[in-house]
Amino acid sequence: MEFWFDFGSPYGYLMAERIDALAAAHGRRVQWRPMLLFAVLRQLGMPPPLAHAPKHDYLLLDIERSARQLRLPYRHPSRFPLITPLPGRMFHALAARDPAAAVAFARDALRAAFREDAALDDADLVARLAARHDPRDAAQLREAAAAEPARRALADAVAEAAARQVFGSPFVHIGGEPFFGADRLPQIEARLAGELAPPPRPETP
Amino acid sequence: MEFWFDFGSPYGYLMAERIDALAAAHGRRVQWRPMLLFAVLRQLGMPPPLAHAPKHDYLLLDIERSARQLRLPYRHPSRFPLITPLPGRMFHALAARDPAAAVAFARDALRAAFREDAALDDADLVARLAARHDPRDAAQLREAAAAEPARRALADAVAEAAARQVFGSPFVHIGGEPFFGADRLPQIEARLAGELAPPPRPETP
Repeated sequence: MEFWFDFGSPYGYLMAERIDALAAAHGRRVQWRPMLLFAVLRQLGMPPPLAHAPKHDYLLLDIERSARQLRLPYRHPSRFPLITPLPGRMFHALAARDPAAAVAFARDALRAAFREDAALDDADLVARLAARHDPRDAAQLREAAAAEPARRALADAVAEAAARQVFGSPFVHIGGEPFFGADRLPQIEARLAGELAPPPRPETP
Repeated sequence: MEFWFDFGSPYGYLMAERIDALAAAHGRRVQWRPMLLFAVLRQLGMPPPLAHAPKHDYLLLDIERSARQLRLPYRHPSRFPLITPLPGRMFHALAARDPAAAVAFARDALRAAFREDAALDDADLVARLAARHDPRDAAQLREAAAAEPARRALADAVAEAAARQVFGSPFVHIGGEPFFGADRLPQIEARLAGELAPPPRPETP
C-alpha cells in the first residue's frame, strides 16, 4: 500500500493518523509518499484545491467536522495554505538512512502543523522535529534537507505522483487501485477486509 | 433537512436511495431540491466537476465502487454527462400539485438513468415516468413540464442553490449545516443521532 500526501494537507493529517493501524490490522504495510500537491496539480494542469470561495468555506467546516468524527484533535493553521517543500525534503533526507525514522518525523510534523499551529517553513523547527528520530543533530539535518539528494528525491516523488494521476492529498493506492480522500477510509477498510472487491478493470500503478 | 441534487449526478442517485430512510430513522423529513449543477457552477464561477481528465477517470471508478459499497445497483450511462433540465422541470410540474408524487417521480427517474441507461432528455420517457405518479396523462405532463411555471420554479431553485453555495450534487442541509457528497452519509447519520455536534460557527441557510 502507498499513502501519498502533502505536509500541508489537513485531510492528509487525518489519514496519517489512521492508515498504519488500519493496514496493520489486515497484515499490510504502508509506504509513506510525501509529495507537493500544488506542483503535482500544476503538472496535471489542474487548479489548486481551494481556488474557489464556496468550496473553500465548505472545506474549512468539513475538515474540522471530519476531525471530530474521527476523534482527532485539530487546529486550523493560522497561515494557510502551508509551504511544504522543507518537510518534504527532510522526509527524504531521513528516509535515505532509515525509512521508519522518516515516517515518525512525518507524523510529528503533521501533528505540529495541525494541532500546534507550527510553521513547517521554519527550517529550525523542522530540523528539531527530525532530530528526534535521527542520530544527526539539527544543524546536520538542516544541511541534509537542503542538499541535492533530498531535493531530487522530492522532485522525483512529484513527477511520479503526476504520472500516476495523484491529483489530491491524501491518496492511497492498494495494489494500484486508487482511493482519494480521508473520507475513503471506510472503503479502504472494506477493501482490506475483502468485503469490497477491486474494480472490474483494475488500474495498474 | 434539504437534499439538493442534479438528475444527472451519480452520487445524487446514491444519496437519493438512502437519505429518506436515514432521516425517517431519526424522526426527520427531507425536502428534495432538484437543481441544475452546471448552471449553479456557472453562477458561482466554478468549473464543471469532470473538467479534468485525472479526476474524471478516478470518479468513474469511485462511483462504481461507492455503489457497490452501498449495495446499490449501478450502471454508468452510455451518454454522460446527462442533460437534465427536462426532469428538473417535470419535478416542479408534479410538486406544484403533490410534493410526494414529485419525489416518487425523482426516485424513478434517477433509477432509470443510473440502472437502466435511460435518456433523461427524452420528453416521452420522462412524461411516462411522471404519469405513474400523477392523474394527468403523459401528453398533459409533457405540456406542464414545458410551461412557464415549471421553468420558473427550476430557475428559482438554481438561483437559490447558487446563493447558498450549493457547489455540488448531492448536497444536504441540516438546519443550515452543509454536507457535500454521498460519502458524507456517515457524518449525516452521526449528526442526526446526536453523536456529532454541529460546527462551532453554524452556517445559516
